[in-house]
Amino acid sequence: MDLSKLGEFGLISRFQSRLKHKSPQVIHGIGDDCAVFSPNKDNYQVLTTDALVETVHFNLKTHTAEQLGWKTLAVNISDIAAMGGRPQFAVISVAIPKRFPVDFLDQLYKGLDRACRKYQVALVGGDTVASPKHLFINLALLGETRKKRVFTRSGARPGDAIFVTGTLGDSAAGLHILKSPKRQWQGPEAQRKKLVQRHLKPEPRVATADWLARSRHKVSSMIDISDGLTQDLGHILTAGRVGAELWEPQLPISKPLLKHSLMNHLSALDWALAGGEDYELLFTLPHEDVNKLKIESITKTGQPVTQIGVITAKKGLRLRSENGRSKILQKPMGFNHFQGKS
Amino acid sequence: MDLSKLGEFGLISRFQSRLKHKSPQVIHGIGDDCAVFSPNKDNYQVLTTDALVETVHFNLKTHTAEQLGWKTLAVNISDIAAMGGRPQFAVISVAIPKRFPVDFLDQLYKGLDRACRKYQVALVGGDTVASPKHLFINLALLGETRKKRVFTRSGARPGDAIFVTGTLGDSAAGLHILKSPKRQWQGPEAQRKKLVQRHLKPEPRVATADWLARSRHKVSSMIDISDGLTQDLGHILTAGRVGAELWEPQLPISKPLLKHSLMNHLSALDWALAGGEDYELLFTLPHEDVNKLKIESITKTGQPVTQIGVITAKKGLRLRSENGRSKILQKPMGFNHFQGKS
Repeated sequence: MDLSKLGEFGLISRFQSRLKHKSPQVIHGIGDDCAVFSPNKDNYQVLTTDALVETVHFNLKTHTAEQLGWKTLAVNISDIAAMGGRPQFAVISVAIPKRFPVDFLDQLYKGLDRACRKYQVALVGGDTVASPKHLFINLALLGETRKKRVFTRSGARPGDAIFVTGTLGDSAAGLHILKSPKRQWQGPEAQRKKLVQRHLKPEPRVATADWLARSRHKVSSMIDISDGLTQDLGHILTAGRVGAELWEPQLPISKPLLKHSLMNHLSALDWALAGGEDYELLFTLPHEDVNKLKIESITKTGQPVTQIGVITAKKGLRLRSENGRSKILQKPMGFNHFQGKS
Repeated sequence: MDLSKLGEFGLISRFQSRLKHKSPQVIHGIGDDCAVFSPNKDNYQVLTTDALVETVHFNLKTHTAEQLGWKTLAVNISDIAAMGGRPQFAVISVAIPKRFPVDFLDQLYKGLDRACRKYQVALVGGDTVASPKHLFINLALLGETRKKRVFTRSGARPGDAIFVTGTLGDSAAGLHILKSPKRQWQGPEAQRKKLVQRHLKPEPRVATADWLARSRHKVSSMIDISDGLTQDLGHILTAGRVGAELWEPQLPISKPLLKHSLMNHLSALDWALAGGEDYELLFTLPHEDVNKLKIESITKTGQPVTQIGVITAKKGLRLRSENGRSKILQKPMGFNHFQGKS
């Protein structure tokens, strides 16, 4: 069945029936002019939006509709997590060419619903419209943060330790594999799959952000890595008017990424520095917190965090390699819309 | 200057500098992963989103960038008004082809900022991304309603009077004029301009909605007219499991629309019944309130409201003409994405 058979209002009912996750705070959900819900009065609210555009953010050869649904919500959740927040209510817009089958939307909603359940988000409404050629998806997400624990990009001070969650560069390597399916992968299948999954099904670090917001650790700045480490760290440096030194041997690089880089004669370091869409958290905090943090992170969230460098008073971004030499990373590497990869 | 010169981050700074309207409730605005603001604890919150797609919702021959900016916010405000709400915080996504000049975005922000100031909305963030071919704009808007006065589509009861604000069909006639600029308009220029403005610069009826939410009038259902009177009334009838009789002689038709219809040998009635994008409010309330309402509306908001019919226990939608005969309006007429005009 194609979209023109079902029509706009048929689509809305179908959308409604596909979403299983319900929140008790929602007074009126999908099906009216707006969604209505009851706010929590003791917190700040956080609001974010992200658009995914066919051929720019994804293509339908590499992503299934279900994966797209998941990812659309996940990338917005990552922004809320990076403020120390908890995601709550979402609205989605889908502009879709008429030639798409209805099943495509069903699968998209399925992926959205899975992410809604996992991250406890109520998808409360949206707008489904026709598109002349390409698929566009936009999601806006509302969440809340504790009033005294809002993490922003500004606030990093010289001497602060720089941390990341998880590993770096896997998502970009996963995309590289997806784009060249004929290239033979000579390692264990589980490793190939891990890289690809990191790209197709990102898992925003809500648990780590929530733990940090509740902990006594004095997080001085935070951002999520969507455009690549150096570019997103660049935002923290600009906002804080500081510089940084990254420690090459400390950059957390996964075994699958190492394998992939060796096999393809590519530099794992480049993936780690510039690979986008990791959706790991990048944050800074005073040096005295470092040791406690590493241990607590594993015990409280099951998620490792790694110190990868230090904030400096001297502006600019430097990379210190194993032999102790440091070089300046001239320009932030990573994704920039309208300019492409730099 | 084109977009690729400025780049994504240059665009964000530019966006930020173009928005003059500030709200004291915003703790962190544009420039971080999310916007942060402080909720009002005594109310419900309402959230809505609307996408505008080039060639589907607008084309750049008929709309300037500034008009698009205004309209993007106005159509979302109209949804909030239709719930009895007051708009507060917005986030916008723009997916724009690289070939567009930067000035296009400047003008778009100018229109957005004008609407923000007029309707007291804080635009707190967004996402600007590249698009392969068409311009795509999405806005998500958060607002609040009084807990006891949330207007929904459901709730219309047999015997309730049906009301609309303003006049019907002007926007669709305005679009008709814009699409055939060579057709000569033989009436006063001010009348032509009025129709065109109704299409290009819709003014959502926030004042009327706000007055009704504060008044003692027992509004039983409300919706805004975006897809055309019969289609949007259809949503109220479906939600309330009721029918309706519309009174043809009472439908509020403006002088410019009458003139335009006569000149083009078209039916003003058809415009009034099926013309979309009027962004007037359509609402129902118990019959005893009718006379007070008409007078109060003018004195309290300066905006006329007109009773155009009555809710019936008998399902379906009927139109009673001047001679007292009534006919069934078979299918809702108006805009349906994926099916086009019915």
